Amino acid sequence: MTRLVLTRHGQSVWNKENRFTGWVDVDLTEKGEAEARRGGELLKAEGFAPTYAYTSVLKRAIRTLHFALEGVDRLWIPVEKSWRLNERHYGGLTGLNKTEVTEAHGAEQVKIWRRSFDIPPPPLPLDDTRHPRFDPRYAALDPDALPAGESLKLTLERVAPYFSGAIAPRLEAGEEVIISAHGNSLRALMKLLFDIPDAGIVSLEMPTGNPLLIELKGLTPVSARYLDTERAQDLPPCP
Amino acid sequence: MTRLVLTRHGQSVWNKENRFTGWVDVDLTEKGEAEARRGGELLKAEGFAPTYAYTSVLKRAIRTLHFALEGVDRLWIPVEKSWRLNERHYGGLTGLNKTEVTEAHGAEQVKIWRRSFDIPPPPLPLDDTRHPRFDPRYAALDPDALPAGESLKLTLERVAPYFSGAIAPRLEAGEEVIISAHGNSLRALMKLLFDIPDAGIVSLEMPTGNPLLIELKGLTPVSARYLDTERAQDLPPCP
Repeated sequence: MTRLVLTRHGQSVWNKENRFTGWVDVDLTEKGEAEARRGGELLKAEGFAPTYAYTSVLKRAIRTLHFALEGVDRLWIPVEKSWRLNERHYGGLTGLNKTEVTEAHGAEQVKIWRRSFDIPPPPLPLDDTRHPRFDPRYAALDPDALPAGESLKLTLERVAPYFSGAIAPRLEAGEEVIISAHGNSLRALMKLLFDIPDAGIVSLEMPTGNPLLIELKGLTPVSARYLDTERAQDLPPCP
Repeated sequence: MTRLVLTRHGQSVWNKENRFTGWVDVDLTEKGEAEARRGGELLKAEGFAPTYAYTSVLKRAIRTLHFALEGVDRLWIPVEKSWRLNERHYGGLTGLNKTEVTEAHGAEQVKIWRRSFDIPPPPLPLDDTRHPRFDPRYAALDPDALPAGESLKLTLERVAPYFSGAIAPRLEAGEEVIISAHGNSLRALMKLLFDIPDAGIVSLEMPTGNPLLIELKGLTPVSARYLDTERAQDLPPCP
């Protein structure tokens, strides 16, 4: 048996402004920082002692992780940052207010983009300045392979090999692991861990900055609970 | 030409209390946090854009690094943490107030421990609870090889292979690098970079939380200056 913690970043500036964020590197709000700090305290109260941490290359997740590691007094553990744990890339919707998009495209279309499993948003053209190829953090990656508009399915397809290749071997070796990431990269991980069908995963909502503590036997969850019980959401049954 | 930044951690709780800290994992004071944050702002003003960061496994250096990376908006770069960048291990003096030690052992003996190049303090016995073998962050290392009382010379001997093996190749490849560390591990690095003789290095004082920006040609410094000019200290000449 080992333990895995998944934490979605605390509230970000664009969460608050109701904008499609995706790969834009917006910071936490003060409320988001407080959520993340509280997450660290709750992890400490559980005696959670991770030996390895994973996060995205986006500061809202990285800073949330740092608050968690400060809470458990383990800033010294290795932290691996990967674009594969980034939020879903919202393509042409990036930066737009959700209300504005609804007015322009209609509520039905927006619902399809937000809640379908496999329909991506309109992709960013390669010459759009929001395209990740202009961002130095992705400079080492093949520009043509970089996401520029992802469905949840496409998000899952780049999260899954990272989970199986980098993270799963540590869990199987009994290490305690923490992953600080984003609404949709965490949906992808939850789908893998809890074997959730395509149709069910889009309705899974994870609260911001609220650590989800999962007990695992091998890679199979045997229990799962949010540590901030007042801000808990429904969880899928363990497989 | 490339740039290397060395930064000593901001003021720590035990700096303030004038205690021998070494490998004890004390946190920054509020003043230390402010110094570190200011360091990040000064780095940003220089357009410093590191692609790789190194630090110790002690939170005062790790947190100082995080403030620096927040300042330059590069929290996403890889951060490698190594015990080899830790502060000098103060052995049996660890945790003691410098005034108390002076009263017990005399000012001459304390000066020898603090300012000689190659005389280590009394070592911690293997069964002393302050011995690093009891700390989980060193669990993967050979207990008999762990420092338990170091001279500056011994500190240099474990810093040097890490510098030449891990850090130097990145500098030689033209990467901008930041190292957040401690008074004595930084003395060791300065000795290597500036080719300072044994007798000269012990008097080098680096101010806390004040980034030292070094321009390098290969591994040879061609210029060096503290970014917070009001808290600058003397620097050795470039070789």
